[in-house]
Amino acid sequence: MNGLLTDLYQLTMAAGYYQAGKHEETATFELYVRNLPLNRNYVIAAGLAQAVEYLRNLSFSREECSYLRGLSQFSRAQAGFFEMLGNLRFTGDLHAVPEGTPMFAGEPLLTVRAPLVQAQIAETYLLATIGFQSMVATKASRLVEAAGGRAVVEFGTRRAHSPEAGVLAGRAAYIGGCAGTSNTKTGFLHGVPVFGTAAHSWVMSFESELDSFRELQKLLGPATIYLVDSYDTEAGARKAADLGEPFWGVRLDSGNLVELTRSVRLILDEAGFPQAKIMVTGDLNEYKILELMKEHLPIDAFGVGTELATSADDPKIGAVYKLVELESGGEKRYTAKFSDDKHTWPGAKQVFRYPGRDLVGCAWETPEGTPAPPKTLLEPVIRDGATVAGLPDATEARKTAAEGLRTLPTALRSLFAIDPPYAVERSGELSALYRKVLETARGEQR
Amino acid sequence: MNGLLTDLYQLTMAAGYYQAGKHEETATFELYVRNLPLNRNYVIAAGLAQAVEYLRNLSFSREECSYLRGLSQFSRAQAGFFEMLGNLRFTGDLHAVPEGTPMFAGEPLLTVRAPLVQAQIAETYLLATIGFQSMVATKASRLVEAAGGRAVVEFGTRRAHSPEAGVLAGRAAYIGGCAGTSNTKTGFLHGVPVFGTAAHSWVMSFESELDSFRELQKLLGPATIYLVDSYDTEAGARKAADLGEPFWGVRLDSGNLVELTRSVRLILDEAGFPQAKIMVTGDLNEYKILELMKEHLPIDAFGVGTELATSADDPKIGAVYKLVELESGGEKRYTAKFSDDKHTWPGAKQVFRYPGRDLVGCAWETPEGTPAPPKTLLEPVIRDGATVAGLPDATEARKTAAEGLRTLPTALRSLFAIDPPYAVERSGELSALYRKVLETARGEQR
Repeated sequence: MNGLLTDLYQLTMAAGYYQAGKHEETATFELYVRNLPLNRNYVIAAGLAQAVEYLRNLSFSREECSYLRGLSQFSRAQAGFFEMLGNLRFTGDLHAVPEGTPMFAGEPLLTVRAPLVQAQIAETYLLATIGFQSMVATKASRLVEAAGGRAVVEFGTRRAHSPEAGVLAGRAAYIGGCAGTSNTKTGFLHGVPVFGTAAHSWVMSFESELDSFRELQKLLGPATIYLVDSYDTEAGARKAADLGEPFWGVRLDSGNLVELTRSVRLILDEAGFPQAKIMVTGDLNEYKILELMKEHLPIDAFGVGTELATSADDPKIGAVYKLVELESGGEKRYTAKFSDDKHTWPGAKQVFRYPGRDLVGCAWETPEGTPAPPKTLLEPVIRDGATVAGLPDATEARKTAAEGLRTLPTALRSLFAIDPPYAVERSGELSALYRKVLETARGEQR
Repeated sequence: MNGLLTDLYQLTMAAGYYQAGKHEETATFELYVRNLPLNRNYVIAAGLAQAVEYLRNLSFSREECSYLRGLSQFSRAQAGFFEMLGNLRFTGDLHAVPEGTPMFAGEPLLTVRAPLVQAQIAETYLLATIGFQSMVATKASRLVEAAGGRAVVEFGTRRAHSPEAGVLAGRAAYIGGCAGTSNTKTGFLHGVPVFGTAAHSWVMSFESELDSFRELQKLLGPATIYLVDSYDTEAGARKAADLGEPFWGVRLDSGNLVELTRSVRLILDEAGFPQAKIMVTGDLNEYKILELMKEHLPIDAFGVGTELATSADDPKIGAVYKLVELESGGEKRYTAKFSDDKHTWPGAKQVFRYPGRDLVGCAWETPEGTPAPPKTLLEPVIRDGATVAGLPDATEARKTAAEGLRTLPTALRSLFAIDPPYAVERSGELSALYRKVLETARGEQR
């Protein structure tokens, strides 16, 4: 399943590895974020559950193999290659940091150690699912930080990059600290709390706003949230209160929020509904929320759509997946890339988290620490194709994120990049390995 | 299928419509782009095939209905509602502009006329799939314009917002004018040409760069594209040429492209490969391509990933889906929203395309034109739940886009917003309807 959901070059390379008799060499790839997105001081690792599901189901149907056979790029590929592809299953190892862990540039979020062909084909899917969810979880944590304890709900599926992206955005936003999502499938599949009551079309579908409020009250009772800005926000809030039935609150989706939230608060209070809440929505992001919070407005909850589900202020995360080791006939070769503007670090690694700093070292290192040894972040998840233990669900990942952020310096939670960034050091052994591989590569080029 | 892939409020509203006995009122919604994304002068409508597939399969499984039953928001919903949901199929009409049509702000890309419950639930999915694909098709058309006839290939799945977004990005990019995609599933499912040969990990997996080139040549022959920047770009190009076998060309993914493309061209020419092509990749977008083109560099093809699959310079498209008519017991009511900062136009519409201008009118209008009547863009696609005719495939949609752009003023193809924007007028009848609905709404508010 989903064998073809990869870049074509992964499959031409696979055919080439097969042709060269290299397809069963054991490769180690690592996935990390090269540079943090704009204004971010960390990324929340997310998407592991989908990565594991992908690896466990990775396969090619007969139709998919025939499709490949028909492509000009495979006209010289050996017949044995397609047979291998038809039988391909993931038989390797996956190490990953727990979902929800805050991570920094250059630190592996996961490593794949598997027969070269398998590890290579998996690159595209792993990057897309981990990169996207990590980006949204990170964005969510910023919104939650800006909202200073008020609830933030993810409402962005309609503007997500495809419906499925919306489902995953809801999951990732919850991991990042949102109270829940409007995406019902996210609730159904991933156990994320779902929210939402009514849209403008609800109000407009009735002869009058009041009729629409009355009908909603009948359906939702004390959980009702009236959308009050369809015609005139203050008049809408008055109608909601005049119904006289207990309700959760009102939602404002347009207009001058600074003025309207205050006047609506007054209307609700004077009508005897001091407990009724005010939720605001409408093109919000962490920067706008911060501005609203500075005004000490009577806002109880935020709904954020487009900006969250697309991480609109920086909709891309520079996640990469790099070959760091290759083992063949018991011999191990460390690999790295040393081009002018992009370079990589060789060898399988481990991330050691000390109070106040991280150390990236070789996988075999066991650095000490006083009074306690550092936390090792990469844990075994799949071994020889079988999952080692049940995966934490979105709720646990959300706790991991909250705890992870709490134990890091507060300055990291700024909405703007701090300078210098958080300390991520390389171990002496890793640096020595880097130099050794660089020298070998230079020697070969001469 | 995919009944739950919607915002929860669509489903609470559905329960409310059922409760109010309104669920079978016939609603007309229209989907349009409120404001064009940054620097855009048009959007290429794309995603219709997936919209149709969704509507034709829209349903709720027994498990999905039980999930909803268990939510607090549905504790007061009537039992009949869940029964209705379990039997729900799309029985309405869909009108849409042909995939690939260039459209402007405020013009309906599609209209849904269906029982209120069905039309309401479909909102979220339709917006996400049409919005995303239209955004990417539009971005692709800009890249192709900037490249001035050189091929542009979509390489962005790894940075797309989820793997499925990558599949659809490849499809949309092709519709927008790209030569193809690296996403193999896009090729398999949607008949889009697929491209790609080898990555840095291929080069690094061999003992030497030369070995990796030799093996690739064996696999791909004259179709080989050597990735030459893993260690030293010029040395890499020399090795490719020194192999002496015919090859398609080389790819440069890093470094100073202005200098390197020229020196690599020289190396290839002097080695007797004047026909070998140069492809460049690496964080490109339409603005950078334009800069490269200004330098008259010897570049034959561009590969664009992140910026295309995420529409990174503006990753959101303000697509909305608004209720414009509601019919009950033979009586029709026109609806619109008149809040301070957002307003909508009532009534089902048609878009009439004249040479040099568009006219948005009421659906029943048949405006004249000299010498020929205008083109009517919205066409029936689904009637009473059944598709009217086979849908054009991605290749036809690509032709529609190319022809559509050719027949519009050249100025629209600028990479920056023109002022004034393209002329989109409203008919006298539509304006009269707007005023009438506005007056009625104001009367009700008094």
